[in-house]
Amino acid sequence: MKSLLLPLAFATLFSTSAIAATSNSTFSAANTLRDHAKQQHLGYDIVESLTVEVGPRIAGSVADQQAVIWAVNKFEQLGFDKVYQQPVEVIHWERGQASAKITAPFPQPLVITALGGSVATPAEGITGVLVFFNSVDELKAADRATIAGKIVYIDARMHRHREGKEYGLAVAGRAIGSSLASEKGAIGLLIRSVGTDKSRMPHTGGMRQTPGVKKIPAAAVSTSDAQLLVAMNKRGLPITVNFSLSSKTLKPKTSYNVIGEITGSELPNEFILIGAHLDSWDEGTGALDDGAGVGIVMAAAHAIKALKPKRSIRVVLFANEEGGLIGAKEYRDANANNLHQIKFAGESDFGARNVWQFATQLHPDNLDLAKDIAKVLQPLNINQGNNKSGGGPDVSVLPAKGVAVFSLRQNGTDYFDYHHTANDTLDKINPEELRQNVAAWAVVAYMAAQYDGELKSLPQGDKPSSH
Amino acid sequence: MKSLLLPLAFATLFSTSAIAATSNSTFSAANTLRDHAKQQHLGYDIVESLTVEVGPRIAGSVADQQAVIWAVNKFEQLGFDKVYQQPVEVIHWERGQASAKITAPFPQPLVITALGGSVATPAEGITGVLVFFNSVDELKAADRATIAGKIVYIDARMHRHREGKEYGLAVAGRAIGSSLASEKGAIGLLIRSVGTDKSRMPHTGGMRQTPGVKKIPAAAVSTSDAQLLVAMNKRGLPITVNFSLSSKTLKPKTSYNVIGEITGSELPNEFILIGAHLDSWDEGTGALDDGAGVGIVMAAAHAIKALKPKRSIRVVLFANEEGGLIGAKEYRDANANNLHQIKFAGESDFGARNVWQFATQLHPDNLDLAKDIAKVLQPLNINQGNNKSGGGPDVSVLPAKGVAVFSLRQNGTDYFDYHHTANDTLDKINPEELRQNVAAWAVVAYMAAQYDGELKSLPQGDKPSSH
Repeated sequence: MKSLLLPLAFATLFSTSAIAATSNSTFSAANTLRDHAKQQHLGYDIVESLTVEVGPRIAGSVADQQAVIWAVNKFEQLGFDKVYQQPVEVIHWERGQASAKITAPFPQPLVITALGGSVATPAEGITGVLVFFNSVDELKAADRATIAGKIVYIDARMHRHREGKEYGLAVAGRAIGSSLASEKGAIGLLIRSVGTDKSRMPHTGGMRQTPGVKKIPAAAVSTSDAQLLVAMNKRGLPITVNFSLSSKTLKPKTSYNVIGEITGSELPNEFILIGAHLDSWDEGTGALDDGAGVGIVMAAAHAIKALKPKRSIRVVLFANEEGGLIGAKEYRDANANNLHQIKFAGESDFGARNVWQFATQLHPDNLDLAKDIAKVLQPLNINQGNNKSGGGPDVSVLPAKGVAVFSLRQNGTDYFDYHHTANDTLDKINPEELRQNVAAWAVVAYMAAQYDGELKSLPQGDKPSSH
Repeated sequence: MKSLLLPLAFATLFSTSAIAATSNSTFSAANTLRDHAKQQHLGYDIVESLTVEVGPRIAGSVADQQAVIWAVNKFEQLGFDKVYQQPVEVIHWERGQASAKITAPFPQPLVITALGGSVATPAEGITGVLVFFNSVDELKAADRATIAGKIVYIDARMHRHREGKEYGLAVAGRAIGSSLASEKGAIGLLIRSVGTDKSRMPHTGGMRQTPGVKKIPAAAVSTSDAQLLVAMNKRGLPITVNFSLSSKTLKPKTSYNVIGEITGSELPNEFILIGAHLDSWDEGTGALDDGAGVGIVMAAAHAIKALKPKRSIRVVLFANEEGGLIGAKEYRDANANNLHQIKFAGESDFGARNVWQFATQLHPDNLDLAKDIAKVLQPLNINQGNNKSGGGPDVSVLPAKGVAVFSLRQNGTDYFDYHHTANDTLDKINPEELRQNVAAWAVVAYMAAQYDGELKSLPQGDKPSSH
């Protein structure tokens, strides 16, 4: 401590101001932490380890169990103070095989992938005429007579955007299309992949199947195949497609949220929660979704450890996010009595590109902290956003329970090129951009852990959902 | 003809010069042709028609037969003066299914595709430890003892380049790797895809299997899987892979070179040959390889028709290029007695991006023509290259028989991202760039057809191969 005499003196001087959210020594340490983390390769090494040593890890699979073991071991290797698991009953769905072909008027193969939760077709597949819709709304408006006995095809398009803005609209067909189509008598659903690529790589993803409605086989064609179907349809002849899926839903399995903590030096029972999800879809290695998030938050917490933060840092790797925030909901419910201990929370789950904005959802009294954090993030080219952050998919269940949250918004321009495809692999990650993320997460978690005031949630009111 | 009186007077004036390769009226018509072709959508419509109405068309398949019928019909619809077919005995190989997985030390799936001509594995696949090589040369230098009973893996890398420069080096592993590996006792071959993408999309392509050497199953992993294997190999444990292929080689089939001609108004028995190949690999729709070439040369010839060229324009759509220039060799041999009628020849087979260079391989006496053509191409941002053109893959068999050839070299920067993959689809074609190609091909073919001198081949000597 001797060598810190002069800076400490300065810090004391500044912290005498009643309105300073952040001490000078914390500013100084946060700047150093940022610059140090920006040079460390640990985040990338973690993603590489997860994708190479475990690979695809869909909930319920053997690889999902291996991912849990991997995460526990990794936390322990990295010297986290506490490492533990919380059981979660997860969905267990297996993709099986998928194949499709146009049988008339111009026979040729199609590339498809089953949507998550789809039922299988008979072994010989199902064969039907396609009925084209540009959106779920068009499907909603259509007469049953035009659909019954046919295969509904939804061609909703999505364009690249830094914030992935069109995802919400485009994903409607995937989410509710199969039940809507089934209610009108369709025998199957095909959708244009919810993606922004020009690629023969179909995008899977979960569905919200309406209880009580007969389940019909549902799959996505690649965007290249979508273009093919549209061009063929222009020729004016009915298009008949045969497709087969061998997907099946098995009994739920037990998986785990895996948690690692750096124990706080002064307020060990107050937590800054930084999260990611451990599960992935099964066709890629889940490097972007959400191996990157796992690497970012583990490496950020590890970088903070040596600084002995006042509050505890809790890293939560959620189970079965892709099944519909299954692990997050279990986390919320199982911890109902101590969620008040979580003072600030955020999840990294939008790929591995640079963070460009820091946004919050916290009490107006705490905006001084947000402003101070933004100052330290500024050299990383991160600006300060609004106070309407959702916190990220899994963390989005917490604000309603009185937890303040934040987002570090990443450049998602090409995120939906790879999202939920076999192409979600390590080669899509730029190590330098990943390091910028680690630096940003370390800064936010550390500065929040050091905050001298009380961290409080935004009063119930305008609670936006996460991106 | 009356309205052309003034231009004709000018033309006469200029053509009195003994050294003018190109009359003023030809220059004028070629400029108009170029500007007109640059506005026409026909080339794209042809590629769309071929990829939508026929799709993948590997030699020997039903779709290959349909492509022949399609081509005959298309030539006739477009008003070509003569349309005919030349039988070619083509290779008939079927890909079947391909699957692969790492079984140790970290089990996970791999994405592979069979190399063209591969034999099948037993139904349960073959299982073996991988032996890593960075190049065919390393494999050549390796001891048999290190390879026998194992699966050889060649990790030759390739980078993007406008001219596809590294293809020749990288492709060696695909071409001769399986026979080399087999001679040293390997049970199978896997290679990093010969491609420049970062994508989980494996690249197929033909092999040159040495007669008398036992055939072993051979496949390519995607570049993403290659990165995975390399990262796993760094961990120092032996990697065991199981892969299975159900590929088979059937009896050869009869397919056809399909030829359409615009008959010359003054020298009908002299031909300007512009070609492309009609077959494609089977996983994409062959939009770039070589649907684009088909669209370019058919549309270019069609654009010339109204100008009543002096020499005939012959469009040749070659069969089974992917099998090793099978249709081209048959064309050369079956026409051995009249190849002297072909005065200038070129093939479009490098995708659909802009042409940036016009190169030739013709007699020095004819370089005046090349220079004149280059003047008309200049507004398309095409420069004049050397006199060492190979003419393109299929056309490359002709210079040795005394045929002058040319190339319109395209920007191939991303060609090997998609080459021989399922991703070779129509969405990769920029219609505007395709039009620039059509304009360039129309100009070259037209100006050569009008040339007043005798068109002669480069004397035997420095005969470079095509790119």
